[in-house]
Amino acid sequence: MTTDHLPGTSPRRGRPRDAARDRALMAATLDELRLHGYGGLTTAAVARRAGVSTATLYRRWRSKEHLVVQAAAVWAEDLGPDRDTGSLRSDLRALLHDKAEALDGPSGQLLRAILGEAAHNRALADVLVGEYVAPLQERVASLVARAEERGEIPPVEDPMVVGELVIGPMVTHTFLVPHEPGGRPGRDMAERLLPYLLRALGARGE
Amino acid sequence: MTTDHLPGTSPRRGRPRDAARDRALMAATLDELRLHGYGGLTTAAVARRAGVSTATLYRRWRSKEHLVVQAAAVWAEDLGPDRDTGSLRSDLRALLHDKAEALDGPSGQLLRAILGEAAHNRALADVLVGEYVAPLQERVASLVARAEERGEIPPVEDPMVVGELVIGPMVTHTFLVPHEPGGRPGRDMAERLLPYLLRALGARGE
Repeated sequence: MTTDHLPGTSPRRGRPRDAARDRALMAATLDELRLHGYGGLTTAAVARRAGVSTATLYRRWRSKEHLVVQAAAVWAEDLGPDRDTGSLRSDLRALLHDKAEALDGPSGQLLRAILGEAAHNRALADVLVGEYVAPLQERVASLVARAEERGEIPPVEDPMVVGELVIGPMVTHTFLVPHEPGGRPGRDMAERLLPYLLRALGARGE
Repeated sequence: MTTDHLPGTSPRRGRPRDAARDRALMAATLDELRLHGYGGLTTAAVARRAGVSTATLYRRWRSKEHLVVQAAAVWAEDLGPDRDTGSLRSDLRALLHDKAEALDGPSGQLLRAILGEAAHNRALADVLVGEYVAPLQERVASLVARAEERGEIPPVEDPMVVGELVIGPMVTHTFLVPHEPGGRPGRDMAERLLPYLLRALGARGE
């Protein structure tokens, strides 16, 4: 099952009708992943959901692995833009809620579906870092730098740990603990995390 | 792929030879999960690794799902015993290193392999909570209670968040960021987390 490199994952260029069909296939792939996980996804079900033949699917992607890697890469992570809200507390709350929003929705289900497979698939692991880990770490670094400039916290010695403290507890709370259908475990944990994170950063008055 | 309830996951009682065979099948299941993930595991490969026929396997477990649920349940989580080491710092370091040890080893690979599948499988989700989440939360509660009694920290308002702060960052660091083969991302993160967690808990002098 190891797929170290996946050259040619991009669908061939084509006419507008082909582009619409590709989008439908990507959306269908994400739906199947969310509903059935990587192990339960079949190219036949994806083709059926997208309303195309499996032959059409295989003309564009040569395997299930190629299809999923491409779908994960076009999946836009719902991490909102970095913005200066004026204080560490409100900057951090905005980031926590942006991540919670993503985790509680389809992005979270997709992340969960591909996490196990990424252990065996270098291309999927690269997508995870590029789409998920790097944008979060950049936003944490910006937020921490602003708080240091404002004199709200002492210099942070290890910003990467702060990034893991922001996302890690929401991920484990969402993925390891069963929740009611329609529950919002990410949002719940975001609010409960905030005072602990402010103290961890040494924020004044916490 | 939904398997809400799995009655009869226990193998039938039998002679000692059967018990040894069952153990070999459980070990083979865990090896296949670690190496190939849930999606890549086949009952044929498990039977081959255990040196039995697939017919023998199916006499004991009626499906791949039943086999994996049972294997995950017998998998002993490497979380060491709770012990009073005399201070919050050393209690917390011991817990972080016990979890890191587990995450960096076969237990971590197994957790990663079943995490996605547990989204669709109630029995696997129950195993995760019973074997993984509950023991950690109990140990965190004991450690926090001792630190409060010693007067090292003010009362902790939300012990479950502390549990997620202990495990979450190590899980995301281990699962989301690619590491060199043989790397110890959990252990690395455990040491870097410690000062942040002590401050988050309001430990004196941090």
